[in-house]
Amino acid sequence: MSTPLNQLGIVKRNIVRADRAAADRLAQYGAATVHEAMGRVGLMKPYLRPIYAGAQVSGTAVTVLLHPGDNWMMHVVAEQIQPGDIVVAAITAECTDGYFGDLLATSFQARGARALIIDAGVRDVKTLTEMKFPVWSKAISAKGTIKATIGSVNIPVVCAGALVNPGDVVVADDDGVTVVPAAIAVAVADAAAAREANEGDKRAKLASGVLGLDMYKMREPLAAAGLKYVD
Amino acid sequence: MSTPLNQLGIVKRNIVRADRAAADRLAQYGAATVHEAMGRVGLMKPYLRPIYAGAQVSGTAVTVLLHPGDNWMMHVVAEQIQPGDIVVAAITAECTDGYFGDLLATSFQARGARALIIDAGVRDVKTLTEMKFPVWSKAISAKGTIKATIGSVNIPVVCAGALVNPGDVVVADDDGVTVVPAAIAVAVADAAAAREANEGDKRAKLASGVLGLDMYKMREPLAAAGLKYVD
Amino acid sequence: MSTPLNQLGIVKRNIVRADRAAADRLAQYGAATVHEAMGRVGLMKPYLRPIYAGAQVSGTAVTVLLHPGDNWMMHVVAEQIQPGDIVVAAITAECTDGYFGDLLATSFQARGARALIIDAGVRDVKTLTEMKFPVWSKAISAKGTIKATIGSVNIPVVCAGALVNPGDVVVADDDGVTVVPAAIAVAVADAAAAREANEGDKRAKLASGVLGLDMYKMREPLAAAGLKYVD
Amino acid sequence: MSTPLNQLGIVKRNIVRADRAAADRLAQYGAATVHEAMGRVGLMKPYLRPIYAGAQVSGTAVTVLLHPGDNWMMHVVAEQIQPGDIVVAAITAECTDGYFGDLLATSFQARGARALIIDAGVRDVKTLTEMKFPVWSKAISAKGTIKATIGSVNIPVVCAGALVNPGDVVVADDDGVTVVPAAIAVAVADAAAAREANEGDKRAKLASGVLGLDMYKMREPLAAAGLKYVD
Amino acid sequence: MSTPLNQLGIVKRNIVRADRAAADRLAQYGAATVHEAMGRVGLMKPYLRPIYAGAQVSGTAVTVLLHPGDNWMMHVVAEQIQPGDIVVAAITAECTDGYFGDLLATSFQARGARALIIDAGVRDVKTLTEMKFPVWSKAISAKGTIKATIGSVNIPVVCAGALVNPGDVVVADDDGVTVVPAAIAVAVADAAAAREANEGDKRAKLASGVLGLDMYKMREPLAAAGLKYVD
Amino acid sequence: MSTPLNQLGIVKRNIVRADRAAADRLAQYGAATVHEAMGRVGLMKPYLRPIYAGAQVSGTAVTVLLHPGDNWMMHVVAEQIQPGDIVVAAITAECTDGYFGDLLATSFQARGARALIIDAGVRDVKTLTEMKFPVWSKAISAKGTIKATIGSVNIPVVCAGALVNPGDVVVADDDGVTVVPAAIAVAVADAAAAREANEGDKRAKLASGVLGLDMYKMREPLAAAGLKYVD
Repeated sequence: MSTPLNQLGIVKRNIVRADRAAADRLAQYGAATVHEAMGRVGLMKPYLRPIYAGAQVSGTAVTVLLHPGDNWMMHVVAEQIQPGDIVVAAITAECTDGYFGDLLATSFQARGARALIIDAGVRDVKTLTEMKFPVWSKAISAKGTIKATIGSVNIPVVCAGALVNPGDVVVADDDGVTVVPAAIAVAVADAAAAREANEGDKRAKLASGVLGLDMYKMREPLAAAGLKYVD
Repeated sequence: MSTPLNQLGIVKRNIVRADRAAADRLAQYGAATVHEAMGRVGLMKPYLRPIYAGAQVSGTAVTVLLHPGDNWMMHVVAEQIQPGDIVVAAITAECTDGYFGDLLATSFQARGARALIIDAGVRDVKTLTEMKFPVWSKAISAKGTIKATIGSVNIPVVCAGALVNPGDVVVADDDGVTVVPAAIAVAVADAAAAREANEGDKRAKLASGVLGLDMYKMREPLAAAGLKYVD
Repeated sequence: MSTPLNQLGIVKRNIVRADRAAADRLAQYGAATVHEAMGRVGLMKPYLRPIYAGAQVSGTAVTVLLHPGDNWMMHVVAEQIQPGDIVVAAITAECTDGYFGDLLATSFQARGARALIIDAGVRDVKTLTEMKFPVWSKAISAKGTIKATIGSVNIPVVCAGALVNPGDVVVADDDGVTVVPAAIAVAVADAAAAREANEGDKRAKLASGVLGLDMYKMREPLAAAGLKYVD
Repeated sequence: MSTPLNQLGIVKRNIVRADRAAADRLAQYGAATVHEAMGRVGLMKPYLRPIYAGAQVSGTAVTVLLHPGDNWMMHVVAEQIQPGDIVVAAITAECTDGYFGDLLATSFQARGARALIIDAGVRDVKTLTEMKFPVWSKAISAKGTIKATIGSVNIPVVCAGALVNPGDVVVADDDGVTVVPAAIAVAVADAAAAREANEGDKRAKLASGVLGLDMYKMREPLAAAGLKYVD
Repeated sequence: MSTPLNQLGIVKRNIVRADRAAADRLAQYGAATVHEAMGRVGLMKPYLRPIYAGAQVSGTAVTVLLHPGDNWMMHVVAEQIQPGDIVVAAITAECTDGYFGDLLATSFQARGARALIIDAGVRDVKTLTEMKFPVWSKAISAKGTIKATIGSVNIPVVCAGALVNPGDVVVADDDGVTVVPAAIAVAVADAAAAREANEGDKRAKLASGVLGLDMYKMREPLAAAGLKYVD
Repeated sequence: MSTPLNQLGIVKRNIVRADRAAADRLAQYGAATVHEAMGRVGLMKPYLRPIYAGAQVSGTAVTVLLHPGDNWMMHVVAEQIQPGDIVVAAITAECTDGYFGDLLATSFQARGARALIIDAGVRDVKTLTEMKFPVWSKAISAKGTIKATIGSVNIPVVCAGALVNPGDVVVADDDGVTVVPAAIAVAVADAAAAREANEGDKRAKLASGVLGLDMYKMREPLAAAGLKYVD
């Protein structure tokens, strides 16, 4: 970069997106299973909540770094969206303002975006719900924003406690949001599939009354750890 | 006032309500658009949340100031409600207790109240939802209150960070709650209508793939601000 | 206890559950009425929220004390569940991790548990909702837990600010969670029933426009307390 | 106002300040006593905290309304400060940015300001402490702000939940911040003085072992309320 | 109890206090070591903070249960204080009001109380600091309280997430507050002393550059757990 | 990496630290100025607070990623500390436990660490203060941790919302914590020095009564933005 101190004001147009098939099929496993498949890392903080229940998506990240109370760059990032992307919006400071509403959602949807993940607020949530454009946000707020300061698009950002590089896979559902580095997306999808393979079997056993204590052979290690049963 | 130090213990019966037609039609624009029409002011804090999704109302404010853990004045304010009013309840200290439940809602609804905005907690939310009596509150709590200390009705109050004078218009929806001073209710309604007039046109353009960057002519000011595109 | 300093690592198998009939019928009165019937005590803090709206349950508590980030004891408590129980999970420190998901819920449900109350996070909430297994939790989080440290089952615990002894009755609905000591469960159920007996009558009066001010004869005590009406 | 919808962008130069002597002597009574003298109202929320312990001040309010992340108007309000004033800064949305540092403090102090009350963040707190310029704020944050959007000076603002009109008296100490409407400043100062008059006497009695139960004659009303002593 | 449903309104005069010597010497070990000595349980939540740094105390608990915004029972509990006691105040709902100030502190100190632990707010903190009367609280607030509703004294209470029975030992310092059940106070004091016995030796080794990895022989179990060193 | 899915369990021994001279001299400018010099980015969230006032440090980051309630890796990271380093500890989930106390501080200090930045809790803060070992943390908590699960050392971590790569420079003072990427440490130090060069001059002007409005030539742009003065 020619101006090392100025980390803002950059729009990176060409990013390497994760393997498309992996990015697409990760949705089915959900945020929890994918995070387990990676070794229990990669989660955004649980204060991010979906604006409506039931959405379950995955896609490739395009990132945007915004300033508090200023959504100018949301229009800039819109142009960088490709079908199958999820926009990940980070803010340089704590802010609950409503950066995103139905007009931007219309534009994002037209560009092929599957969702927005934003570490701030959104508004027009009734319309967004009707449009079936899912958003995971920190707040819902009618507070509007201005367009005065530039940020950056497709740089690495920290959103709700998680590092997101442009092109990473984002998996989001009612449980939260998990980020999968692009380089391991295929391997993680395979690992998540493997985890799910015998879930049906386990569920059937548990439903029949078999205890996890026995199914997972926990009684011996529990006793070794000192667990005592009293009457 | 004869006792200037005693700001509590007053019920003001005759208040000047905002223009009825303006108070009624503001609902359709929603909290976000109305706040924009006023120059991005007048919002209550986003921690106020509706107890159920989808309600969208406006009405004239009758105000009540309560003490922590004491809902006695809720019965006093009930008598001051006129059809088309929204009750705005402020508390003299932080409190999450459940000040309001299905019996009070029945009474408020019988008097013609359209909603309750309260900077504290409510309860019986399942029944309130069935009654379709919308409430925006800071908390949901089964905690009951006592009836021991008097407050005031129809004095100016600060509710969730916003000043509300009796007679002001309150606009509330899933995005939050906006307060419109009575004196400018008509002008704000006109301004909000003007804002919405060309929204359909904008939405159609964005849906067709036109970018906000072009529709709002942002490319030049962004470049002037220093935005750089890299590959 | 032989090792007075080691308060952890105990599973108490035989607990005295509250009167079954009382435990069952308390659900219908709801958390708010039951808490009133006990003299406005026994509530868990309002940050505990149901993962879906509309569930209303009561049952006898089996308790479990867990460590932050470790859900090993959830499998231990599963074995102690009897039909009609509600599991109450406390953590020794603040934690929002997802201790409980669809597999454990399948097991709990198979054992006859009616609900989980947990002072931490849960996950798989979409599936839990489909299973109609209600949970009241502090957070929803995809974050998984480990199985490394033992806790205890069926000891007295503090969950979301309320003391719960094994066998106590737990009443939970959209308004929150109330704990009824086993020894007074019958009396509380009777008192709650008495409170509800004339609610229908009150509601009808209020719906007809009678004011609480008159129905509860509040005008005189309000005047005595200094309330003044002005125009 | 000629432009009723534009509530921002106004600097009111001539404000009526509260009685100077009353404004000055209120400091000695402290925030708690003054709030009691007004009938337990007028407090800002307790999340406002002093940046260092021990400061105790009172003064006349000059107010400023700022946007999130934008401190441009802090320079505008500086010019309106007169000796004995306290600047009260409100923000149109939740924000923790550091709006104020040592340079602005130098300017405010040179103009005669006694303190800053701000519903957001400040920085350079080490230097501010050395300068003995007290600040009550919601946060301490190194995050800088921009200068892009105008707000207003000397309009009524809501700061940390309290309404402040320009010219009102602000009383701040380690316990918090109380606002006294200008019109009642003298009466409140007299009432506060009266409250303190017999405090020394009470303190001596309590220090000698006399109980509040006896000094305030509470035993009878407590018994009447149902209090029971058991062994 | 004759009225099992009325859990409020009781003052228990005769309580069994923990062993005095144990209660007194626990202070020296501090809240963290004592909690470790009990098996890492017994802590109040970390939101309780001392009003000034450096106090380190222990004593026997007298408990009081208060209602939100009402400190009447603080005068009742004062009479039950004996030298060496620490007052533990719980509230039936979330509240940040200032329940306690310099007059009550004078009375408590005259009765021999060593500290106050309160799950709400206090005020007059400057004077309390000068009096060297330590308080651990959830908030500092100038907000005053009323005297209208009775609570109870010396019943079991939950304070900041911990169960406290009257007579238990409370240990409080800058790290927080730990509760030691009276029955195990002597054993815990011994265990805490044992923990501290070789701390000086450990500290000397660590100060000389010996690593915990070697001193605690962690290298092997870390490798067994899969830890890998890379260059 | 050979096991791409296992992002935990790695200790990187050889890291490239930022230029030593730059890392050392950044302390003098403080967190706020350094963040400004980078274009207003690089800050950790303001909930991180120093355990005592007045410390001002900079140093090169060694990083550690920990699990909730488990401080095993703190001993592992100790060995990787070199004189002039600052340890940056991130947690895989929200946790307030006390991961660090006086023994670990003794070891860290013996290895040459200048400070600890931790997105969780610490304890023994009285002793840490006496040792003059500064810590910036999210909480103070007596709660101890276990040693059961491995994490990683010297991998990139997100701490309090900021990305930290091992070897980056950390600048911390009473205003907060700023992270400077190693590659731009020298340039940022120069830019910060330039910012401070004329601060003395500005301060002198402001102290003499010159207004920022004039010194920064703001009157014209304010008028252009629409600011109006009224009487």
